[in-house]
Amino acid sequence: MRYVCDACDTIHYQNPKIVAGCIPTLNNRLLLCQRAIEPRYGLWTLPAGFMENGESTEQAAVRETQEEACATVENLELYCVFSIPHISQVYMMFRASLASEDFKPGRESLDVRLFQEHEIPWNDLAFPVVKTTLEHYFIDARSNCFPVHVENIHRHPARQR
Amino acid sequence: MRYVCDACDTIHYQNPKIVAGCIPTLNNRLLLCQRAIEPRYGLWTLPAGFMENGESTEQAAVRETQEEACATVENLELYCVFSIPHISQVYMMFRASLASEDFKPGRESLDVRLFQEHEIPWNDLAFPVVKTTLEHYFIDARSNCFPVHVENIHRHPARQR
Repeated sequence: MRYVCDACDTIHYQNPKIVAGCIPTLNNRLLLCQRAIEPRYGLWTLPAGFMENGESTEQAAVRETQEEACATVENLELYCVFSIPHISQVYMMFRASLASEDFKPGRESLDVRLFQEHEIPWNDLAFPVVKTTLEHYFIDARSNCFPVHVENIHRHPARQR
Repeated sequence: MRYVCDACDTIHYQNPKIVAGCIPTLNNRLLLCQRAIEPRYGLWTLPAGFMENGESTEQAAVRETQEEACATVENLELYCVFSIPHISQVYMMFRASLASEDFKPGRESLDVRLFQEHEIPWNDLAFPVVKTTLEHYFIDARSNCFPVHVENIHRHPARQR
């Protein structure tokens, strides 16, 4: 089944979408955004969003971080590539350096804060992909070695029943 | 500008598409397909194609290799992530082991062959992304160390004028 324009027969293919984002870090702390939009209003997430036409994956991650946290990031390094087949999304998450402490909530965020590892709100993270990314990050940070993680993320456990 | 259905107001967003493929290798040789379709009819390429909804990136690469070369690949490792902003595509190329020499041209291929490095048809490769992937591969193969390459590929030089 495909969407086809009745007037010109253009086929609108439905392909997986790329969600690009990053882990902005500064002096052993990392930046999370509290969502001001549904789904998962009020929960915490890494800055990320749909890549747009004409961008590179890094540019999309930089733009989303600017939009959601009014923050500037640099030195991006690809870190996680997560396929989420049941919603046809591919997350591409980069490690990134936060340029300064000059940030504030964008229109889609209630709050933006820097967290040390022991301060991470593990029970109030918005998406499984955010939890998995952060878990990898803190483990890899101990050895200061950050291989690219390529994984599949399946349906949220609470919704598998 | 967006495509919107006149009847139901559904917006058909135009997002970048993922092209997933691989470098199938067997005993120091790698598999290339000769294209039986436009663009670049008759030129050589790595098996790759548009990822579809409901797949992981690896599954898409495995499926495309089956379709184009009737070949089975396994042990996929992410190798190249190339953004091509001017055509809004992101290539995700994996290294992969060819399961056997049991392969043949699929419907979109004129021929499928295994090549050693000195046999690669460098002047008859279909796309810049294929050339760049192979160049990285042979350099990295010397040290048997294959980091993930994240790059942007810009307009084909011959078309930049």
